[in-house]
Amino acid sequence: MLETCMTTLREKAPLIHNITNYVTVNDVANIILACGASPIMSDEPEDVCDITSICGGLNINIGTLNQRSIEAMFLAGHRANELGHIVLLDPVGAGASKLRTRTAASLIKEIQFDLIRGNISEIKTLACGSGTTKGVDADLADAVDEENLDNMVAFAKAFAEREECIIAITGAIDLVADSNRCYVIHNGRPEMGRITGTGCQLSGMMTAFVAANPDNKLAAAAASVCAMGLAGEIGFSNMQAGEGNATYRNHIIDAIYNMDSTILGVGAKYELR
Amino acid sequence: MLETCMTTLREKAPLIHNITNYVTVNDVANIILACGASPIMSDEPEDVCDITSICGGLNINIGTLNQRSIEAMFLAGHRANELGHIVLLDPVGAGASKLRTRTAASLIKEIQFDLIRGNISEIKTLACGSGTTKGVDADLADAVDEENLDNMVAFAKAFAEREECIIAITGAIDLVADSNRCYVIHNGRPEMGRITGTGCQLSGMMTAFVAANPDNKLAAAAASVCAMGLAGEIGFSNMQAGEGNATYRNHIIDAIYNMDSTILGVGAKYELR
Amino acid sequence: MLETCMTTLREKAPLIHNITNYVTVNDVANIILACGASPIMSDEPEDVCDITSICGGLNINIGTLNQRSIEAMFLAGHRANELGHIVLLDPVGAGASKLRTRTAASLIKEIQFDLIRGNISEIKTLACGSGTTKGVDADLADAVDEENLDNMVAFAKAFAEREECIIAITGAIDLVADSNRCYVIHNGRPEMGRITGTGCQLSGMMTAFVAANPDNKLAAAAASVCAMGLAGEIGFSNMQAGEGNATYRNHIIDAIYNMDSTILGVGAKYELR
Repeated sequence: MLETCMTTLREKAPLIHNITNYVTVNDVANIILACGASPIMSDEPEDVCDITSICGGLNINIGTLNQRSIEAMFLAGHRANELGHIVLLDPVGAGASKLRTRTAASLIKEIQFDLIRGNISEIKTLACGSGTTKGVDADLADAVDEENLDNMVAFAKAFAEREECIIAITGAIDLVADSNRCYVIHNGRPEMGRITGTGCQLSGMMTAFVAANPDNKLAAAAASVCAMGLAGEIGFSNMQAGEGNATYRNHIIDAIYNMDSTILGVGAKYELR
Repeated sequence: MLETCMTTLREKAPLIHNITNYVTVNDVANIILACGASPIMSDEPEDVCDITSICGGLNINIGTLNQRSIEAMFLAGHRANELGHIVLLDPVGAGASKLRTRTAASLIKEIQFDLIRGNISEIKTLACGSGTTKGVDADLADAVDEENLDNMVAFAKAFAEREECIIAITGAIDLVADSNRCYVIHNGRPEMGRITGTGCQLSGMMTAFVAANPDNKLAAAAASVCAMGLAGEIGFSNMQAGEGNATYRNHIIDAIYNMDSTILGVGAKYELR
Repeated sequence: MLETCMTTLREKAPLIHNITNYVTVNDVANIILACGASPIMSDEPEDVCDITSICGGLNINIGTLNQRSIEAMFLAGHRANELGHIVLLDPVGAGASKLRTRTAASLIKEIQFDLIRGNISEIKTLACGSGTTKGVDADLADAVDEENLDNMVAFAKAFAEREECIIAITGAIDLVADSNRCYVIHNGRPEMGRITGTGCQLSGMMTAFVAANPDNKLAAAAASVCAMGLAGEIGFSNMQAGEGNATYRNHIIDAIYNMDSTILGVGAKYELR
């Protein structure tokens, strides 16, 4: 029952440490607040170990990485591992540059992540060392669809087994897999791709969902994906004439703010494979 | 008469230099524009002395501090002191990490601030070297309430006397004190805590209010706190079904944009102790 | 026919690399998406050459420059020149500090820009080594108006000839000039100046327009200026009671999202001199 994960999240209100890009950081903070958790941002190496120690989860997003923030990612990741905190990696743009590909690969080698969330191109880059990207967007040729769904589910499970963590591949169809089970999720709207940072927002919120539900990680991760997609649907239905992607962004965060377990339970569209 | 401070601010339109965190910086810039002033952001050590020299006020916020921006804070602060400009400190997360606590303590030792604005946990950390925090949020155990109000007013005045500056402690009840007088302010909505950066926004706006009213600093600081809280009330009353914290953020800045001295005069709820 | 440039942009959907300030970066990303292109942000020297190589245009904005991002600007600019990509400079705050003035001057010396877009004070600083600024805003004494229009058109053409690039000077009246021709554009609303980053947004969008129309650079640059101003007009007409600059910002990006070549063709107000 995915929806109970949202109830738990709102009760526990975990503090989430985000080392994330400066493009979408404000929306990440607001969606973490909207779902009932609290965000804190810090990317200075001398600061991050203290900050991550007081948090329940760590969200590492390499979107505008630099030498300083990369050092901070490793320091915070190791500390979070020592403390048994939930750690998520969002490998933004892996495959688009050598630095991003190498940094993401080193992070998953050195840090034990609980969750890796990306688009199919980023995940393929991490899994196979290849995969094409269109900058920070997925290459359409890689996309998960009904035709290749069985193969993609198997791929996600195999990568989850190799990394001993949950793999979330988001796109038109979303997959959230551990080594045995895979949630196939059909929530969302294509227009969400016209807003910057819906993936970053989901990564922050997923960290919060899982940090609040450590005994139920896969369901909590899947619940966050359903919640984000459902918020995209609710937000879209609230669009007025003349509104576009800037306002849609607000509608989505607002929909998370107003979402409860009943709304999530009724609206979530998924199957377990 | 607090409301005249807003009239003066709109007439003088001071330029405000902000060394502030990248999480909420866009909202800080827009609320500074909304209240009638102009923002400029710069955190590079080689740049900040020139920038602060052409401004009327300097807002230092340690929210996503790093070694570079810390150096810039000291350089800009010293220059602003030399020029007699208004300088404000927002010690975001003081108490949450050693670096933040130490940086805030060093800043108030080396720079003569006109204003320090934080939540009660941050201010207690600066005043007492202790105080607990929940990340960047105040610990509820520390909160100012009707029970401990006399003690908290005395604490604010004593800390203001020690630091020879105005102390603003914001929360459910806001205190704005110098060594002799303390405004106790009852504007605001609890839902403002579900938006990232309302405190950062207030710090930027407070710097603008005081920079425009240098002969009336305490009243100007209190006016900015009343204006922010009142904007929270007006913004909340403008909320439509389905709206949440993302849109509420816009309503608040919009309310500042449309606020004039009459609205502020009628809506401000405070007493002087 | 400026409006066809928008059709081409939506068809080609170029990827735009932005090295831009952290104040307005989210709005820059969303307006680039709104106009049909895709944004990617990167300012780490080790990352930028790879990123700019996969893009069709590079937008360099010095708004919150630092030593690291300055190095990245030169590296990315040289690479973009090697690859024949469109490169734009937004010299935010040139004239307000020695570092900004010197950096902008060095950039135009070392990098061959296709486009330089700024307010009149910033452009005068680059062209003449002088010019006054009010921080990141133009000095009113410098403004383009009906009285000095002939002189300003001649100035823009002369500077365009010297730099062998298109010069866009935006304000109440906008000029977009190469050495021979100058679009004089009358779209826009004065209230756009009360929003942070409308200039930054335009620079990002202009890079996208020109990257999609490399054989028609001047018209494409002018089209982006008309589109931005027209979006300001449409967004303003959509303002409801109680709304202010925060919501106006969203209305403008939304108007770009909903704009097509017909709307642009009907609404664009310009003459060619």
